[in-house]
Amino acid sequence: MLRFACDYQEGCIPEILERLNDVNLEASPGYGEDEYCRRARDVVREAVGNPEARVMFFIGGTQTNSIVIHGLLRSYEGVLSAETGHVCGHEAGAVEAKGHKVLVLPQKEGKITAESIRRYMNGWRADESRTHIVKPGMVYVSQPTEYGTLYSKAELEAISAVCREENLYLYVDGARLAYALGSPENDVTLKDLARLADVFYIGGTKCGALLGEAVVVNRPDVLPEFFTLMKQQGAVLAKGRLLGISFETLLTDGRYEALGRRAVALAQRLQDAFVEHGYELAMRSPTNQIFVVMTKKERDRLRQWAAFETWETRPDGRVVCRFVTSWATPEAAVEEITKRL
Amino acid sequence: MLRFACDYQEGCIPEILERLNDVNLEASPGYGEDEYCRRARDVVREAVGNPEARVMFFIGGTQTNSIVIHGLLRSYEGVLSAETGHVCGHEAGAVEAKGHKVLVLPQKEGKITAESIRRYMNGWRADESRTHIVKPGMVYVSQPTEYGTLYSKAELEAISAVCREENLYLYVDGARLAYALGSPENDVTLKDLARLADVFYIGGTKCGALLGEAVVVNRPDVLPEFFTLMKQQGAVLAKGRLLGISFETLLTDGRYEALGRRAVALAQRLQDAFVEHGYELAMRSPTNQIFVVMTKKERDRLRQWAAFETWETRPDGRVVCRFVTSWATPEAAVEEITKRL
Amino acid sequence: MLRFACDYQEGCIPEILERLNDVNLEASPGYGEDEYCRRARDVVREAVGNPEARVMFFIGGTQTNSIVIHGLLRSYEGVLSAETGHVCGHEAGAVEAKGHKVLVLPQKEGKITAESIRRYMNGWRADESRTHIVKPGMVYVSQPTEYGTLYSKAELEAISAVCREENLYLYVDGARLAYALGSPENDVTLKDLARLADVFYIGGTKCGALLGEAVVVNRPDVLPEFFTLMKQQGAVLAKGRLLGISFETLLTDGRYEALGRRAVALAQRLQDAFVEHGYELAMRSPTNQIFVVMTKKERDRLRQWAAFETWETRPDGRVVCRFVTSWATPEAAVEEITKRL
Amino acid sequence: MLRFACDYQEGCIPEILERLNDVNLEASPGYGEDEYCRRARDVVREAVGNPEARVMFFIGGTQTNSIVIHGLLRSYEGVLSAETGHVCGHEAGAVEAKGHKVLVLPQKEGKITAESIRRYMNGWRADESRTHIVKPGMVYVSQPTEYGTLYSKAELEAISAVCREENLYLYVDGARLAYALGSPENDVTLKDLARLADVFYIGGTKCGALLGEAVVVNRPDVLPEFFTLMKQQGAVLAKGRLLGISFETLLTDGRYEALGRRAVALAQRLQDAFVEHGYELAMRSPTNQIFVVMTKKERDRLRQWAAFETWETRPDGRVVCRFVTSWATPEAAVEEITKRL
Repeated sequence: MLRFACDYQEGCIPEILERLNDVNLEASPGYGEDEYCRRARDVVREAVGNPEARVMFFIGGTQTNSIVIHGLLRSYEGVLSAETGHVCGHEAGAVEAKGHKVLVLPQKEGKITAESIRRYMNGWRADESRTHIVKPGMVYVSQPTEYGTLYSKAELEAISAVCREENLYLYVDGARLAYALGSPENDVTLKDLARLADVFYIGGTKCGALLGEAVVVNRPDVLPEFFTLMKQQGAVLAKGRLLGISFETLLTDGRYEALGRRAVALAQRLQDAFVEHGYELAMRSPTNQIFVVMTKKERDRLRQWAAFETWETRPDGRVVCRFVTSWATPEAAVEEITKRL
Repeated sequence: MLRFACDYQEGCIPEILERLNDVNLEASPGYGEDEYCRRARDVVREAVGNPEARVMFFIGGTQTNSIVIHGLLRSYEGVLSAETGHVCGHEAGAVEAKGHKVLVLPQKEGKITAESIRRYMNGWRADESRTHIVKPGMVYVSQPTEYGTLYSKAELEAISAVCREENLYLYVDGARLAYALGSPENDVTLKDLARLADVFYIGGTKCGALLGEAVVVNRPDVLPEFFTLMKQQGAVLAKGRLLGISFETLLTDGRYEALGRRAVALAQRLQDAFVEHGYELAMRSPTNQIFVVMTKKERDRLRQWAAFETWETRPDGRVVCRFVTSWATPEAAVEEITKRL
Repeated sequence: MLRFACDYQEGCIPEILERLNDVNLEASPGYGEDEYCRRARDVVREAVGNPEARVMFFIGGTQTNSIVIHGLLRSYEGVLSAETGHVCGHEAGAVEAKGHKVLVLPQKEGKITAESIRRYMNGWRADESRTHIVKPGMVYVSQPTEYGTLYSKAELEAISAVCREENLYLYVDGARLAYALGSPENDVTLKDLARLADVFYIGGTKCGALLGEAVVVNRPDVLPEFFTLMKQQGAVLAKGRLLGISFETLLTDGRYEALGRRAVALAQRLQDAFVEHGYELAMRSPTNQIFVVMTKKERDRLRQWAAFETWETRPDGRVVCRFVTSWATPEAAVEEITKRL
Repeated sequence: MLRFACDYQEGCIPEILERLNDVNLEASPGYGEDEYCRRARDVVREAVGNPEARVMFFIGGTQTNSIVIHGLLRSYEGVLSAETGHVCGHEAGAVEAKGHKVLVLPQKEGKITAESIRRYMNGWRADESRTHIVKPGMVYVSQPTEYGTLYSKAELEAISAVCREENLYLYVDGARLAYALGSPENDVTLKDLARLADVFYIGGTKCGALLGEAVVVNRPDVLPEFFTLMKQQGAVLAKGRLLGISFETLLTDGRYEALGRRAVALAQRLQDAFVEHGYELAMRSPTNQIFVVMTKKERDRLRQWAAFETWETRPDGRVVCRFVTSWATPEAAVEEITKRL
């Protein structure tokens, strides 16, 4: 079976396992106070170009999102998100479970705009009953989005500017950040994210680690006592070095961007092949997730050889199918499925 | 430096790393639906002797405790715990963060009694204002306790009986369960726990895994939709097989008990050595954590060669120091420190 | 100034103040255990035709909604509501503050349908990732709705049937229930609500009381320890008799329906007058809130003599204005504004 | 039956009912934006000597305490309280339900000391694991306390000083504040409270109102968006003027202190009578609650004529009984019970 179902079905890049093996019997302090975590933090600070950044390691995306959002917001505030945002529909109400409403913005191909944020804020301000409704406190975006699309630097700058004007935190979910950084169409660097977002994270789980997400806090005045908040929420790993080793390994020698580049190149080849064979794309993706429109019959034929997800069913009965590549996708798998189209 | 500070300072038993390596490039479904998790669940069900038990894998102890407690309790209920219970003082208010009060019971050497539970419940029932106070909904105990002591089978049976009578869930925190199972003084088996507790967990993080705790739900009617609750609380690992592989490895070929046995034997040797050298014990521990009373001068001398924790300072100025062994403690370390006493 | 801004701008029906005065120096037990509350509960049970119903008195609508919803749902569940539902946008995130997501259903004139609930549940069931999303646990409707419209008995029966089939609680917000019961177009009695809803409330604040809402729990198995939940949420009034006296007074001698009837008749006269004068209605309301479309100029002219709310601005620049009558609206006010149209 | 069970068993001082009657048919804006609330706020600001104070009206004590505490604390913080503090044991876990742990301080006669706060903070600071435990964020005290005792100005000044040094908010629960202000032994004025506490409240429910507590926020930088937080927590009264009228009435013409003075004088007469008849006091109370030690037989005899509460049972079998007077206690009742001693 050719595997295109998701980017978290294999283990991790071999270098991480090697490092874990090397240091296995060494003893270190727990809870992220070890030298591996310390070095990983330095590597991240260097990569994002902010020597003052605080870096915290989490275990997974839903955990990261809900705790960062909870930490940034006061209890009467909510978070603005695209209706397709991961926090909106795919995290089992994790944000609400910590007391905050997800305020929905319209999206196009998974993206929101500075203009839609401003419109929402103007509406809120104009509402005579605005003290009776949830106050927007922050904006959540994903880079790349849940649909594989990318915010351009100009778009993120505009969003960041409106956030500062409106006194909203900007938080960027980078669960698949390697595949943004590895896309030829991307013009947003880690340094840009550090400059434009108050907090963002560098995804590990979907980008070659066994587990883990590295949260980068760019402002000294937000998320005070962040460790205690994480501990209270059960988000601290006793053997924290597992995460330190993973991120140090991922973020040195250009591994993170390289694995992204490779996966994106494979996804693009597959996307081009679909187009050549006359398939319609739900949208053109510049990253490692592609969304192809097909009839159910076409889908069922492909399913004989390949695993992938049905994303939605269109009113005309056709389905949108998602194909995902990762650091672990064999080139041969792309060649093989291409032959079968 | 001889390391006796805790039981989570090294990586994991080598067999786990080997297995991770073997399957690294295999693909599996995410979120615990893979074959490794399936097999690990079967192994746990076999070990606890309950083919109907549900088994869920968590990442760490605080996460496990707070989510299981939250899942078992209704919002107006609280959890009874020894004042030395881990949930009481060492989890940064994780239980309270999910809305529940920890109701404190007196303890002796880290243990509570069936009698103290009954007394609490009688007091609650007799209180004319009992609808104005928190309703006790469950009992939390640790095996072994935070002081290394063990509940005997008779004690746990009495606690379990009063819980059933009083309609309280019984939940056992087994963060260090290997060191109970590996103690010559222990008479409580996994099958006993499955029979006596509604829910308990088999600790991995402190017992040889890189991370992970295996929650065993012995009753079909509790914790419905448990996966969704875990997802909502950010407790689901995308690459869940990391936990499945860890527990399958730990719980086969008697590894779990064996590593406990070895660590306990080393701790006992060290405890005996302290006694022979005239040190007072804060209490006699039958497991892998020992608590020795010494003067600050004695402590500071030992600190030259060994790492260990100061647990508390006594009114007379002496300190209680904790020494912990684990699966990874070298025999030579115990010999070495013994020579220095 | 002629007052049509809302139905909670005056004090209360004079009979309540008289009763408060009569018993002012009598002593009674606190927290709703007094004879007035006891009698009020009996009066409610009689009125709804369910001698087994539990009746609890709350202070206001947002408090009632958020606590009843919290009490009915498990922590991983959400509540289905029309996007115009009061809990959705006008309660400052009260439901989310207790941990639950409001799941939005499309509405027409403020109403949802049995069919839309079934469609939502079918979609949820068909979702392969449904364990990763919020589980719908109940349905929230208002009678009358936030737009003054009414569910017919047939509509509510269909909604109730689909709820039972789908294992969803049905909760009816009756903040303005007097104005439903007092509408000539209404065919849903209190006894119907007791039969069709698991929980509903009889509004006091907007229906002639100084404050208070009477929650009717029709099923013995829901909302256990409800008093303690209310106490924990700060919803118990020490001098509970204030609420008991209010509801006993409101619900005897047909006062509740009578005050609704009178207010609805006045609102209908006003609605007819607008129509006669060529105004468009946003929708035909059968209750005490009417929604009239007008130009901003027309609105501003009317504002010279009358107070009312601008509900929304239409894309064509016209506004929808809301006019509300209550038990306290003088007949002369309706005549006066009619003359000015 | 002579009534000494509590101070919230009657209605309210007649002047409040008169005012409610006078304005009953007047219309006013909802949610506390009416002229009565405005005037009541001015009266409070004048009384506390802080023209910048924000004043918000709540409905009851548990609601007030839990929302103020939630608003002041960040999610990782807890509140320090005497173990006898109302928030600790008598509010059904309301503080925990909003996510915060109540951190217990030892007490004497219901009071804590500046020294005990400092000792707690020193212990917290010295704890090497302090990032793994709840951070103290504020101090809660009651004036008078749950045992009727009073903090002196010197004591409160010391507590306030240590709070400022330690960066802890100081919050004073004044549920029975009238009975402190009316005590001859009291030297703490409203102006002192405004100077020493960050937030406090002036109790209405137990001090002559039908319901209501007036929260005084003395610092401009705390409790931002307080109205929205209250709305979200269901604590806003639609007909807010009920509270405005109550507090304007209570706090003008010296009524509040006068009713306190009268009730305290009656309680003191009763306390003296008990002493004269050879009864032991659990402690000497200078306010309206007195605590008398007696045998069960003595209690049962008195119960024939009087209602009062049994507060606790002593190890020697004797009971501590609480007798409470209020603005409504008839002088004759005190004379009558005195005769029976």
